Amino acid sequence: MEYQFSNRISSLQPSLVREILKATANPEVIPFAAGNPAPDAFPVAEMQRIIPEILRENPIGALQYSITEGYGPLRDACKALVENHYHIPMRDNELIVISGAQQGADLASKIFVNEGDTVLCEDPSFIGCLNCFRSYHCNLVGIEMEQDGVNLEKLEEAMRQPNVKLFYTIPNFQNPTGITTSEYKRREILRLANKYHVMVLEDNPYGDLRFAGQPVPSIKSMDENGMVIYVGSFSKILAPGVRVGFVVAPKPVIAKMTVGKQCADVHTNILAQMACERWLAGSGLEEHLARIAAIYGKKCRLMLDCIQQEFAPSVQYTTPEGGLFLWCTLPEGADMLGFCNKAVEKKVAVVPGIAFLADESSPCQSFRMNFSTPTDEAIVKGVKILGQLTKELF
Amino acid sequence: MEYQFSNRISSLQPSLVREILKATANPEVIPFAAGNPAPDAFPVAEMQRIIPEILRENPIGALQYSITEGYGPLRDACKALVENHYHIPMRDNELIVISGAQQGADLASKIFVNEGDTVLCEDPSFIGCLNCFRSYHCNLVGIEMEQDGVNLEKLEEAMRQPNVKLFYTIPNFQNPTGITTSEYKRREILRLANKYHVMVLEDNPYGDLRFAGQPVPSIKSMDENGMVIYVGSFSKILAPGVRVGFVVAPKPVIAKMTVGKQCADVHTNILAQMACERWLAGSGLEEHLARIAAIYGKKCRLMLDCIQQEFAPSVQYTTPEGGLFLWCTLPEGADMLGFCNKAVEKKVAVVPGIAFLADESSPCQSFRMNFSTPTDEAIVKGVKILGQLTKELF
Repeated sequence: MEYQFSNRISSLQPSLVREILKATANPEVIPFAAGNPAPDAFPVAEMQRIIPEILRENPIGALQYSITEGYGPLRDACKALVENHYHIPMRDNELIVISGAQQGADLASKIFVNEGDTVLCEDPSFIGCLNCFRSYHCNLVGIEMEQDGVNLEKLEEAMRQPNVKLFYTIPNFQNPTGITTSEYKRREILRLANKYHVMVLEDNPYGDLRFAGQPVPSIKSMDENGMVIYVGSFSKILAPGVRVGFVVAPKPVIAKMTVGKQCADVHTNILAQMACERWLAGSGLEEHLARIAAIYGKKCRLMLDCIQQEFAPSVQYTTPEGGLFLWCTLPEGADMLGFCNKAVEKKVAVVPGIAFLADESSPCQSFRMNFSTPTDEAIVKGVKILGQLTKELF
Repeated sequence: MEYQFSNRISSLQPSLVREILKATANPEVIPFAAGNPAPDAFPVAEMQRIIPEILRENPIGALQYSITEGYGPLRDACKALVENHYHIPMRDNELIVISGAQQGADLASKIFVNEGDTVLCEDPSFIGCLNCFRSYHCNLVGIEMEQDGVNLEKLEEAMRQPNVKLFYTIPNFQNPTGITTSEYKRREILRLANKYHVMVLEDNPYGDLRFAGQPVPSIKSMDENGMVIYVGSFSKILAPGVRVGFVVAPKPVIAKMTVGKQCADVHTNILAQMACERWLAGSGLEEHLARIAAIYGKKCRLMLDCIQQEFAPSVQYTTPEGGLFLWCTLPEGADMLGFCNKAVEKKVAVVPGIAFLADESSPCQSFRMNFSTPTDEAIVKGVKILGQLTKELF
């Protein structure tokens, strides 16, 4: 049987990262290609206490259908978190609980992007969301990243075109580069969004994983005119397996997202929502975040130290102030894909940079490295192997 | 700010059922409008044992990212269930775990339906899936339901048109009518699907809730040519809050669905998947299903007995052999919406039939009643109130 698939899906390939992740399920391969949060950052003991508690106290509530907008007490807790912890005024905004931050990109696309419309993204950017935009059969346009965020001239030039509906940005410790967008550029992004009536989709999964430098206000916190859709996630602050996130946006946007979510998955797993709520209600959030940021910081510094010692000096790399990733760039003319393949042969997996480009056929000398998944020993060993390769080749 | 939403979402209204559900959150209203499984059918004690067990034995596995296709042991368990319990050969098929059956309709639409393509459905049908199809901006065409399934002449006439991509059917105890499609019509549906190259989306959330009559083979079990996408769900056999279901379809279809799901929500809540797997591994499934079918059967018979005693004889109603719903039809010329509104005023909620039509502006004399959510006392009291109304009006 030859199936005639929709246009939107025919062109879409399985995420390269996920395919690599599967290939590297082999425990002998050092997982610099992964994107998993550090398991020792999970609040295991709390979950082991909280979830059985919920099942004892309110088993029917934890098993029955719930409403699409999200479990009421969790919505309230997230609103408080948004105002008090993320310093975003709820004012004219509303909040919906979603099944992980990925669903935020899906719902934003569903409600704003007609087929053929343009979506702008940082280039490179998070492949999961790029594929999501592609799944709406849009025109995906990448805007070059610089050390402090996107190139503003190119962003304005792109926004000036017709039918540009969204600009997707990860301002804190971006995936894959680790770059943080400066406060100046955040204000300019918002100014341009207002000028050209382009919605900003601000994805902040990593914001709480800051281990160096000073926090920068979110774009949403500056948003006076309802141009920003803010996506938060429990994946990195609690755990990704729960698949819980939230969106803060103006009320009419959340109303449409609610309709879209009804059609997509009715509501998010209710026990997970209750667990997130109870976990937030425990007073230890700031301490927990300080503890996990320290874990990530230690791992990042270790990887950076090893890179400095082991890599050929011609290889450049970013120095993230938080998050899970750093971005290495091989010297001009180097065969990046060849390098990544040789690395896998030597049982070290990194992700080729092209996976993160709006146009995967663009030239790319970079690859992404994750420091949260591998053990400290694996970081030392893996970077040594990669370093030898760089010295042999460059 | 005036937002310019996508065409697909602009025309879509919030699900009437969900809005009514919210309105009837008032505990004084008798909830015949609901669609919730009976809480006493949930395996509460098992979940209270299983979930803490998983969190003790494999907390990191239960919290970390997982793969899009689903938790391996659950996929294996579902494949065994499909073959041994639902009598569907896996042969050339594959299986993906999804975030509730609703996601099955979403992914089927995503991968098969271009904007403007036609999706066929039973008329009336489940509003959640109708809205899902609408969210892909398709041409939704309803095929008249008869006592033994859709009108086959009208189905063939509709399939003969160009760009028909899916036919959506709930063959067992359909929502909203409670009708079961006969084996003859199932074979004919499959024959027509093969003849006109239209995929059949077979949704079977209620199949295990049979309390009368004999099981009828699924359309998927007869599918030699890979034309059927079968959607199963844990919502009614275990509990809906877990948001876990599965799709069985030919390998190329599942491969595309996996790509679509990566873009939508990455993967389904992993603790819920592990809980479903461990629950299935407990040997009590058939006993559990017999127990819950008895609960639903008792409630259905009570409602039918009350209706027979209390309703005006001019009101017709279906006699389901399973499931959660029955369908009442007022006499020709009656003001159905007026009746439903008067019922809510008297604190009994039913769902106006138009909510379930492909074209909500079609004439409709029917309303849906749910017998699984209300208590026995509420069934007796609520039907008496509705009965008085029917006697006053008709």
